[in-house]
Amino acid sequence: VRAPGTQVYLIGAGPGASDLITLRAVRALARAEVVLIDDLVDRAVLAHCAVAVRIVAVGKRAGCRSTPQDFIQRLMLRYARQGRIVARLKGGDPLVFGRGGEEVDFLERHGIRVEVVSGLTAGLAVPAAIGIPVTHRQYAHGVILVTGHTRCGGEPDWAALARLRMTLVIYMGLSRIESIAAQLIAHGMRADAPSAAIEQGTSSAQRHIVAPLAGLALAAREARLEAPALIVVGDVVAFARASERLSPADRAAATI
Amino acid sequence: VRAPGTQVYLIGAGPGASDLITLRAVRALARAEVVLIDDLVDRAVLAHCAVAVRIVAVGKRAGCRSTPQDFIQRLMLRYARQGRIVARLKGGDPLVFGRGGEEVDFLERHGIRVEVVSGLTAGLAVPAAIGIPVTHRQYAHGVILVTGHTRCGGEPDWAALARLRMTLVIYMGLSRIESIAAQLIAHGMRADAPSAAIEQGTSSAQRHIVAPLAGLALAAREARLEAPALIVVGDVVAFARASERLSPADRAAATI
Repeated sequence: VRAPGTQVYLIGAGPGASDLITLRAVRALARAEVVLIDDLVDRAVLAHCAVAVRIVAVGKRAGCRSTPQDFIQRLMLRYARQGRIVARLKGGDPLVFGRGGEEVDFLERHGIRVEVVSGLTAGLAVPAAIGIPVTHRQYAHGVILVTGHTRCGGEPDWAALARLRMTLVIYMGLSRIESIAAQLIAHGMRADAPSAAIEQGTSSAQRHIVAPLAGLALAAREARLEAPALIVVGDVVAFARASERLSPADRAAATI
Repeated sequence: VRAPGTQVYLIGAGPGASDLITLRAVRALARAEVVLIDDLVDRAVLAHCAVAVRIVAVGKRAGCRSTPQDFIQRLMLRYARQGRIVARLKGGDPLVFGRGGEEVDFLERHGIRVEVVSGLTAGLAVPAAIGIPVTHRQYAHGVILVTGHTRCGGEPDWAALARLRMTLVIYMGLSRIESIAAQLIAHGMRADAPSAAIEQGTSSAQRHIVAPLAGLALAAREARLEAPALIVVGDVVAFARASERLSPADRAAATI
């Protein structure tokens, strides 16, 4: 007979800053005997763990190349079957572009009791960090969270996205920023739609640029933004703070 | 000369459960000298405040009738001008259907330094609480957060929403659930699209129903769901747990 308690916590660590984690996540970390931590999670959150905890780094970078997803799932299963309380610590929210749904499914099919601890997703908290309210009664009646690509190659329905006139938040889109902006404009979005790209939002390394949609890719390239980054398009981006965080070196690079 | 520090914290308390608040919010509450708290926020979070804090309930219910929004804004301004550190505690995330953008704008125009502390929005955390991953590589490449109505009367572009085939999360839609389902079906969404409505998600009073889209309104009425409630439509709802939380009284009512 299996113990009734949770065996695996699937925890969202939030968008970057280590204090943007929930109390529930902190308490789950304190209970965990094994913590599997993703690359993008600030190690400072491990301060909430017990002294005797085992930490396993299971980083994998975004992209379509083969990832150790299966390996991570089997690792969680193995520790859980050893009777240990496992915490899987992921950036953002485990169920928003985090493959958490697949992990819950896998573990439950193997009889493991899983608890999801939601975290702040970058798509909402990162715009807030540069002054953008993703919804606004006057400017945006909704917000859409998408990835820049669908499962290795497909494209979102840019025409429908452009037509909705809601705030559009694009995860993992930096490498295709030129194409994304072009598609949106080709499908009816204004070339001067306020747009932003934010690198490592909410972390101490946060940098961002703001530009009209047609100039977004160039501005991102000039500022040498790097992944992980988020793209935000829509009237609410007009509220964004100026990109004051670019370092002098960045500014110099941008003028070359 | 104004003090350089934050004068007003605009804090998201999360979707319901009092431990789904961030560490940053807890620390801001501990600093606050005056806390303006919304109706829907669990009073348990006030345990994080200092002993001498002043608590002001500023509840206002959703809807298009006139609300004390201006009054709340002026109240924050008054306390901030008295030199007190103010925390405005709102359900969910202040910038997702929370009018936080307007409040920031108002206060900053009056020279007040505001800091937004993001919170978990119900639209992502509440589906998670009943087992729904809002995105899933196989079933949903994005998620859309909308309200059931736009500013006193308007309607979202249901046709574009139906066409996107992403997970659709509708806030404040329970009173119009019949019309919403009918519109989505009329604009091409499948009548048997998996759908759910969740009352007071993540709180101890959480209840939910799951039904095909065409039967959602009836199921919600039979279960006597009440606001605040969230509607979720899309293939990922197939992962939802059965609605086991309806009380015997609810079940009896549902058979009348």
